[in-house]
Amino acid sequence: MSEKNVSRVTVLGLGAMGTALAEAFLAGGHATTVWNRTPGKDEALVAKGALRAETVAEAIAASPLVVVCLLDDASVREVLEPVADALSGRAVVNLTNGTPAQARAMAVWAAEQGVDYVDGGIMAIPPGIGTPHAFLLYSGSSVTFEAHREVLELLGAAHFLGDDAGLAALYDLALLSGMYGLFAGVWQAVALVRSENVRATEFMAFLKPWLSAMFEGNLDRLATQVDSGDYMTGVVSNLAMQAAAFPNFITVAEEQGVRPDLMLPIKDLLDRAVAEGHGAGDATVAIELLKN
Amino acid sequence: MSEKNVSRVTVLGLGAMGTALAEAFLAGGHATTVWNRTPGKDEALVAKGALRAETVAEAIAASPLVVVCLLDDASVREVLEPVADALSGRAVVNLTNGTPAQARAMAVWAAEQGVDYVDGGIMAIPPGIGTPHAFLLYSGSSVTFEAHREVLELLGAAHFLGDDAGLAALYDLALLSGMYGLFAGVWQAVALVRSENVRATEFMAFLKPWLSAMFEGNLDRLATQVDSGDYMTGVVSNLAMQAAAFPNFITVAEEQGVRPDLMLPIKDLLDRAVAEGHGAGDATVAIELLKN
Repeated sequence: MSEKNVSRVTVLGLGAMGTALAEAFLAGGHATTVWNRTPGKDEALVAKGALRAETVAEAIAASPLVVVCLLDDASVREVLEPVADALSGRAVVNLTNGTPAQARAMAVWAAEQGVDYVDGGIMAIPPGIGTPHAFLLYSGSSVTFEAHREVLELLGAAHFLGDDAGLAALYDLALLSGMYGLFAGVWQAVALVRSENVRATEFMAFLKPWLSAMFEGNLDRLATQVDSGDYMTGVVSNLAMQAAAFPNFITVAEEQGVRPDLMLPIKDLLDRAVAEGHGAGDATVAIELLKN
Repeated sequence: MSEKNVSRVTVLGLGAMGTALAEAFLAGGHATTVWNRTPGKDEALVAKGALRAETVAEAIAASPLVVVCLLDDASVREVLEPVADALSGRAVVNLTNGTPAQARAMAVWAAEQGVDYVDGGIMAIPPGIGTPHAFLLYSGSSVTFEAHREVLELLGAAHFLGDDAGLAALYDLALLSGMYGLFAGVWQAVALVRSENVRATEFMAFLKPWLSAMFEGNLDRLATQVDSGDYMTGVVSNLAMQAAAFPNFITVAEEQGVRPDLMLPIKDLLDRAVAEGHGAGDATVAIELLKN
């Protein structure tokens, strides 16, 4: 790597994720300064060439780009607010887990301090950082993002979502909500077949291609329906039919000694949709009924 | 097709699915007799070469293999019980939606009547029948299944699960439970981003690869953990961390005007797992807590 591509970057917070971020910057050949509130977390990083900062202010002074990965929003506030002066004119990319409202409030605070602010969400676990499987979502200052995009790409594919700083957290939480729905369905399915001592590894030979087909066959249609607001075109299996068949999932779970808890709110949602007159439409209309 | 491969098959029930089944048998060149309780459903099939039966008994008499696809288990009982004598010595493949208990009870009844019984579940929607996307699950008499496997393969890939007639219905309901979990997650995710007017079609560019990665990266490990009962090895993100982060999904949904109903039982399950001492393990242990 040529000298002109070497950047200076600081990482605040050396939990499992912060450590993985710092390692990716180091692996990319960048001058990486690290800091953690409690000492002793930086030894392996320093052995790999990281620069140890004794204080937050020292860490911030070391680099134009400060990547923050702390426990939560309250920790970010506690760490950054006392060093607001030092941060002025620097770029902060905050990858701490948080909510859209927290991200927007941080962006307002950063603007008041003259800090260039980007909020981010990491769609990877620490071992995935720097691999082709990782992607990260960013929102806030597009200028700041573009200025540091090349360094940020070391962490994983970098996607900028817009100047509303809350968007990255919103997408992040939406993607994770989708993941937990998938997991909940898999847990329920496996619990059901395990009730007859079917091996989960054997059941996967059916569950994986089935979910994959449901995935490939439905998500694009669903998205088109949602964007158009038309849930009556291209209906494959109407909502009334699905709601009518749904009690079997509850009954059979109970017969097999499996708690139906994960399925109950889906039943309620479908029933409500039928009651509100959507029975002839696609089940995707359920999304509209999630609006409060 | 040579004459020796032509079978005679009867289809009872000509709803959308029964009609698709009969069409697949006809397309395979088999002599297909059809019957429906209410008249007028068979005209398109007869135009394609199906043989119309005026009565159930006539339909049963026409073929050694009787495929049943009626509204529900009660309908199957109403239609078959009066013609038990005619069914004796014939093979019944019951593809009507039902529960494992209903399938087992039908198998007992069939054995009493001298009927060879196979229960089945159709993992496809009617337009998918006969395409490479369809697969069907069968359980009950393996001899009967093997005798008719070639004809049944016309409907979609045929998988025999075992001699417990309830297994096909159990797998079917488990796979559908998994699908609804996936859909619920997708609905929640899309509702969240729609709350900021993000287009669902644009969000799919993130949701699809993300769920696909979660799917590829987790299901095999999950299955291995379940079969071994060891939820402590290969923990990627422990349950306590996941439970601690989960309230954000509820809070943010509410902040965005999205009902958190679909997420609440997942939160309860994770919280219960932590309370029961599983916090250091993998979230997959949730499957154990679904047992009543």
